[in-house]
Amino acid sequence: MEKGLKIATIGGGSSYTPELIEGFIKRFKEMPIKEIWLVDIEEGKEKLEIVGALAKRMIAKANLPIKIVLTLDRQAALKDADFVTTQFRVGQLAARVKDESIPLKYNTIGQETNGPGGLFKGLRTIPVILKICEEMLELCPNAWLVNFTNPAGMVTEAVLRYSNLKKVVGLCNGPIGIEKGIAELLKVSVNRIYVEFSGLNHMVFAKRIYLDGEDCTEYVMELMTGSAGNTISLKNIEDLGWEPEFLKKLGMVPIGYLRYYFQTSKMLAEQLVAVENEGTRAQVVQRVERELFELYKDETLAIKPPQLEQRGGAYYSEAACNLICSIYTDKRDIQTVNTQNKGAIADIDPMSAVEVNCVITKQGPIPLVTGELPVSIKGLVQQIKSFERTAAEAAVTGDYATALLAMTINPLVPNDTDAKKMLDELLAAHVEYLPQFKNKL
Amino acid sequence: MEKGLKIATIGGGSSYTPELIEGFIKRFKEMPIKEIWLVDIEEGKEKLEIVGALAKRMIAKANLPIKIVLTLDRQAALKDADFVTTQFRVGQLAARVKDESIPLKYNTIGQETNGPGGLFKGLRTIPVILKICEEMLELCPNAWLVNFTNPAGMVTEAVLRYSNLKKVVGLCNGPIGIEKGIAELLKVSVNRIYVEFSGLNHMVFAKRIYLDGEDCTEYVMELMTGSAGNTISLKNIEDLGWEPEFLKKLGMVPIGYLRYYFQTSKMLAEQLVAVENEGTRAQVVQRVERELFELYKDETLAIKPPQLEQRGGAYYSEAACNLICSIYTDKRDIQTVNTQNKGAIADIDPMSAVEVNCVITKQGPIPLVTGELPVSIKGLVQQIKSFERTAAEAAVTGDYATALLAMTINPLVPNDTDAKKMLDELLAAHVEYLPQFKNKL
Amino acid sequence: MEKGLKIATIGGGSSYTPELIEGFIKRFKEMPIKEIWLVDIEEGKEKLEIVGALAKRMIAKANLPIKIVLTLDRQAALKDADFVTTQFRVGQLAARVKDESIPLKYNTIGQETNGPGGLFKGLRTIPVILKICEEMLELCPNAWLVNFTNPAGMVTEAVLRYSNLKKVVGLCNGPIGIEKGIAELLKVSVNRIYVEFSGLNHMVFAKRIYLDGEDCTEYVMELMTGSAGNTISLKNIEDLGWEPEFLKKLGMVPIGYLRYYFQTSKMLAEQLVAVENEGTRAQVVQRVERELFELYKDETLAIKPPQLEQRGGAYYSEAACNLICSIYTDKRDIQTVNTQNKGAIADIDPMSAVEVNCVITKQGPIPLVTGELPVSIKGLVQQIKSFERTAAEAAVTGDYATALLAMTINPLVPNDTDAKKMLDELLAAHVEYLPQFKNKL
Amino acid sequence: MEKGLKIATIGGGSSYTPELIEGFIKRFKEMPIKEIWLVDIEEGKEKLEIVGALAKRMIAKANLPIKIVLTLDRQAALKDADFVTTQFRVGQLAARVKDESIPLKYNTIGQETNGPGGLFKGLRTIPVILKICEEMLELCPNAWLVNFTNPAGMVTEAVLRYSNLKKVVGLCNGPIGIEKGIAELLKVSVNRIYVEFSGLNHMVFAKRIYLDGEDCTEYVMELMTGSAGNTISLKNIEDLGWEPEFLKKLGMVPIGYLRYYFQTSKMLAEQLVAVENEGTRAQVVQRVERELFELYKDETLAIKPPQLEQRGGAYYSEAACNLICSIYTDKRDIQTVNTQNKGAIADIDPMSAVEVNCVITKQGPIPLVTGELPVSIKGLVQQIKSFERTAAEAAVTGDYATALLAMTINPLVPNDTDAKKMLDELLAAHVEYLPQFKNKL
Repeated sequence: MEKGLKIATIGGGSSYTPELIEGFIKRFKEMPIKEIWLVDIEEGKEKLEIVGALAKRMIAKANLPIKIVLTLDRQAALKDADFVTTQFRVGQLAARVKDESIPLKYNTIGQETNGPGGLFKGLRTIPVILKICEEMLELCPNAWLVNFTNPAGMVTEAVLRYSNLKKVVGLCNGPIGIEKGIAELLKVSVNRIYVEFSGLNHMVFAKRIYLDGEDCTEYVMELMTGSAGNTISLKNIEDLGWEPEFLKKLGMVPIGYLRYYFQTSKMLAEQLVAVENEGTRAQVVQRVERELFELYKDETLAIKPPQLEQRGGAYYSEAACNLICSIYTDKRDIQTVNTQNKGAIADIDPMSAVEVNCVITKQGPIPLVTGELPVSIKGLVQQIKSFERTAAEAAVTGDYATALLAMTINPLVPNDTDAKKMLDELLAAHVEYLPQFKNKL
Repeated sequence: MEKGLKIATIGGGSSYTPELIEGFIKRFKEMPIKEIWLVDIEEGKEKLEIVGALAKRMIAKANLPIKIVLTLDRQAALKDADFVTTQFRVGQLAARVKDESIPLKYNTIGQETNGPGGLFKGLRTIPVILKICEEMLELCPNAWLVNFTNPAGMVTEAVLRYSNLKKVVGLCNGPIGIEKGIAELLKVSVNRIYVEFSGLNHMVFAKRIYLDGEDCTEYVMELMTGSAGNTISLKNIEDLGWEPEFLKKLGMVPIGYLRYYFQTSKMLAEQLVAVENEGTRAQVVQRVERELFELYKDETLAIKPPQLEQRGGAYYSEAACNLICSIYTDKRDIQTVNTQNKGAIADIDPMSAVEVNCVITKQGPIPLVTGELPVSIKGLVQQIKSFERTAAEAAVTGDYATALLAMTINPLVPNDTDAKKMLDELLAAHVEYLPQFKNKL
Repeated sequence: MEKGLKIATIGGGSSYTPELIEGFIKRFKEMPIKEIWLVDIEEGKEKLEIVGALAKRMIAKANLPIKIVLTLDRQAALKDADFVTTQFRVGQLAARVKDESIPLKYNTIGQETNGPGGLFKGLRTIPVILKICEEMLELCPNAWLVNFTNPAGMVTEAVLRYSNLKKVVGLCNGPIGIEKGIAELLKVSVNRIYVEFSGLNHMVFAKRIYLDGEDCTEYVMELMTGSAGNTISLKNIEDLGWEPEFLKKLGMVPIGYLRYYFQTSKMLAEQLVAVENEGTRAQVVQRVERELFELYKDETLAIKPPQLEQRGGAYYSEAACNLICSIYTDKRDIQTVNTQNKGAIADIDPMSAVEVNCVITKQGPIPLVTGELPVSIKGLVQQIKSFERTAAEAAVTGDYATALLAMTINPLVPNDTDAKKMLDELLAAHVEYLPQFKNKL
Repeated sequence: MEKGLKIATIGGGSSYTPELIEGFIKRFKEMPIKEIWLVDIEEGKEKLEIVGALAKRMIAKANLPIKIVLTLDRQAALKDADFVTTQFRVGQLAARVKDESIPLKYNTIGQETNGPGGLFKGLRTIPVILKICEEMLELCPNAWLVNFTNPAGMVTEAVLRYSNLKKVVGLCNGPIGIEKGIAELLKVSVNRIYVEFSGLNHMVFAKRIYLDGEDCTEYVMELMTGSAGNTISLKNIEDLGWEPEFLKKLGMVPIGYLRYYFQTSKMLAEQLVAVENEGTRAQVVQRVERELFELYKDETLAIKPPQLEQRGGAYYSEAACNLICSIYTDKRDIQTVNTQNKGAIADIDPMSAVEVNCVITKQGPIPLVTGELPVSIKGLVQQIKSFERTAAEAAVTGDYATALLAMTINPLVPNDTDAKKMLDELLAAHVEYLPQFKNKL
């Protein structure tokens, strides 16, 4: 690797790319990248060219010897790569619109990660990811796969169970956001606190919080439920607040996604109104993206435009660049990533993917032990994991009944009959992206 | 025990008592009972006298030397008892009416065992059961507590965690009913099949089914989802059927209560209609009970009237008498009861109560190993267990926030705010039966 | 099976066969056997004919319609068998003489089950057993394999890990002997006690003992360590007694084999003297066998001669016939057998073979949960299991280093260098029975 | 802590103290110590004064504002301490002479950590440590206890199970030594390798080894067993080598102490010769210490004399200073320490002390997950843990039978009768240091 790193970014035409480029520029001293290959597919070519041109202007402005390569040839991009990042979206935002709107017809939240929408995002994405894994084992067997594509937990689970690729990490910006939020609440700098995360992707909890080495979890919960309000939330989830006594007794800072499960009917009502007013979240994002790409086209722009931070994925690039940098430099710092459990969470199968604190070493993330999940949430977390495992199996086998089982056991789905109807409607809507189901229906 | 057994039945005025008496009469040769003490409280005195008189007529007709004692003095009844059965209902059916109707106001199924109603039944019942345990340790330390009172799983959990009484078994008629239903479906006698049950009370599954030693689970699932339909259901749960592909893929015969969780919205809709037409289930039962007690008053009646079987609790007495008889005679047969897990189900805390097959010996039930729960249901089962544990803790501590936590994590509850409202309304409605919460609200 | 059972007994020429025949005769009413095929190999033909003739005389005297078939054609014997019992000895007693005498040269106890001798018995036996399993899957796929051949634990482990045959049970007379011994000590009939066994083959413990349903373990330990002495021992292990304070604190009745591990130097000294006086145990057994076969030849003999009971394997036939009978009749009684753990013992891999109480049903043994092993012995039990697993792997792979690892980690082996010397000498001595090692040395 | 740290070192008169002082001097910039209190007891006063004077000269030469306080008043030393290190020896080396020589009379290796000698060292030490814990909870509740005193695993186990002090870490120089040894073997600097340690104190294994992020374990095992020989050993354990095929198949670098268990008879023979020639290890150490203290008396000496490194405990001070410094500065680097398992090693009770890699944070060590122990050693490791737990219980209760149980189950002890004899002789020899057994014998 001495000659400089090669990065391959699948879904390179994504609106997130400038953030990633910015991250790589910032860390160039530690992590001397030689080439960044931005890969996309025919349908994404135009966006790839726009964002690629911006990336090149950013590099030029930073005056760094990094080569940006734009390509539709994935295998050329993978060849001898050191790190492969994935941020593609099978079926693009149009597919997400369906993932979110079809369930709403059945009074069900679509939820593009752990809900019915997430099931279909997984069904579309997992076969592609597994194909990439196969190609990596052939073309760059020592490279790391750093996956951003949602549902990141389900995707990581699928790679761990159905691929021979061992070097995989799933990433989410959630834990960084929570950690920063807690630090703000405590009015201290982030490096004075330590947050013990435990859970799954989009179902993770700040289990214990330490300030200067002393456990301050209860104090944080006081702050969260006091007049200041429980202000820690991701940009893409409506903050409806929590009943203060409930949150205090829960005794952990949950990721915003918990609202989908413990505030189901409120979230549904809120979504129905929002859809009425501004369309689904996917449609909102489509508009944001259009605006972003308009900005990106500006040939005088040579930095990441600040508007990008309004998008839900703030800190995503920070998470990715930190991870890649720590692996490359054997930094051995602690980051919260999706990786194989191996016993870190006592209640979850050691083979499964979990989202926990890890030391990031040159040989990858090593999970820190966090013990049992609290009684209050161990059932729900387990249920999401059951959903992820069943969904991953359906994605690989293309088995209708397995997909129906995954849909029905999802906590957001109101009954088996609606599960079947949603499944059928979504299978029909996404048929072009689900070849594995083709001859089985 | 040579001089004949003493049975103490708490809640002796229950309409179920004739079935229990019939069971004892049938098994007199194996299990020579000398005395049956039927205990009740002041409010139940009238019913106790009616049902007690019937019991005496039944014994007389059977011409057996069993003495029936009616009493309001629980401690006299417990003194030197060999078996204590509990079938009481704190607050009687009037309380159950509230457990079922108040949640409906919030578009929530009350469900008197594992739902919000079950939480309150547990909050009312557990302190009384723990008091009985304490008295037993004093007055009849070698006796077995055989608990029928719902929520039987939560009650057994509470005894295992908060009492020193070790000799406790929780009973449900569900598994017997499923087993009989499967035998009927297969058109064979029950003794040719073996059903491996695994789960919790009212959340139990016929995991594997054997006919003459060969695994026939798949065949049973075919039958269940074929034209004959999935006909195995308890009398007290509306049979809405299951999506056949779902049930087949689930690969197990679930107890009817699973409908509350995987058919939530359908069950709710159905209940709203039923309440409109005939009142809550509790109100239906009140009418049935009134009719039963009218029958019981008939001084010419000296048998269990067949109408009793229309009540939901069919086989309850069979379950209880079989259990008592097998303990007394060290029969070492296999029964499905609620007992301490000890590792029988790999996914559940060894300390917790589970509903599994056990060998019934003189020293009590010994669970048979059943391994991991299938992925599809391990989350939901775990979630019900989390609810039971949190509810039991709330019952013992009288802590408001713990009760709110239990309510909010229940899978039937739509959101934290409604959880709080239901909790507050139910706490107010049941205030006289919840002394442990008195000074804490 | 309606037409009567077919039993195939591999190693039919064994001196134990008359006991087995007697057991089948006694249980004929319950278990109507039509044919018993006694199989042996060319080298055992003479013994097969002698013992086969006796078996025929026994059947004739009992006047039962059971056909005895003597054969060297194993596949003909297996064809359509209902139960296959194995009691063969690869290399016969001459091999056992080497297993016991070669280690003694290195001041090491040979121990034909869990010691260096057991390693070699396993290396010789396991490939043959796995071949039988393969043939059974072809010729009698519904039959049960009931294995008596030692080391029974290691053999059962090997079948569970390296064969597709699921219907296997390993048997030992140890637990029956301990149970009878405890009953004698308590001066009560065996059916009044319940003994909870937990452990591995030849490393099993009577963990808790109940008399009429009450725990009397401490009282038994008092008796064991009182003036009556600790009299429970198998015939084939010298009873050197235990330090009473040790045994009492241990709090369990151990199988006699525990002496090899917690009295190693005393057992070794005793063996060295015994070998001097009367030869190895194998040589003693050879003499006993010669005498038995002289008796068997007597054409007037038509019963099992009482002298057979002097042989170490008392109750072996009882164990086997009870097991076969309970499977055949779905008796659901409790027996202590070697079967897959599945969580019965919390400390041992669920996949591994353990010796625990099971309910014996038509679909085979179902283990009863017994929880964690006591701290005092969990290490040693685990170490024997590690030895068994490593030895089974060596038997299957024929890998020299794996065999050396198994030998070195055995607790009876004094050091790695002697381990290697013993291994080399035993490999050379048994070369004709270890084809799997042939081209690897 | 801003005003500078206070360190209290119990057993301050130890010959190791200069190393500790040197370590503190080196790290003064990172870790501004204000006071080091060296505590000893009356019997150690002379040594305390000698070593204390040297410490003062070392500080003076370094020209640092650290105050050295010599005291016999432990409570004054503990008052408001930030870190408490323990390196005392109850009964001093004279007691160790007995621990090592008495077992030898019974042809048993004494082994002052995990053998019969270790049992007695534990029996003498644990009550004192628990007393210190109690005082710390009173006098310096926020301080960390950093324990060097052997048997460090047993002592840590005892603190975790029998004290309310949570801030405890047990230290050993073994892992550092192995890591440095591996780096030397690979001819690379230590910071290019990562060694995954797993096990218990003095029973730890380098399970996997990574060089620049790639697993090189097999290559290291090749080197270890090649012509270069297996050169990684501690100074205080005779290196008898390993059978190469065994070590390679073991596939891990074991700590030298493994020789006691897998080379028992060779180690015993070697010790018997060594004792003949130069006395027990304790007697050798006594001579070394006498020489060291002669050196220490030299008033011109103001550095740690190089001869100290010949003593067994090389790197001890490095281990201690690194740990204290990382806790103080929240360094979050990886160190191998004795701490509560919490699931890091799947096979060991989560409550127990284990020796594993941890991230060292301001709130203490957080174990990194390492999964299951390899089959080959999981039994032995578990057996040592059983010994430690039983020994710790005996130390706390003063129960004779528990001590006998601990002695008998130790893998070095040849039989129960010799166990009892050694126990009795050692109890008599150490009677003045074992008050807890006084009225119980």
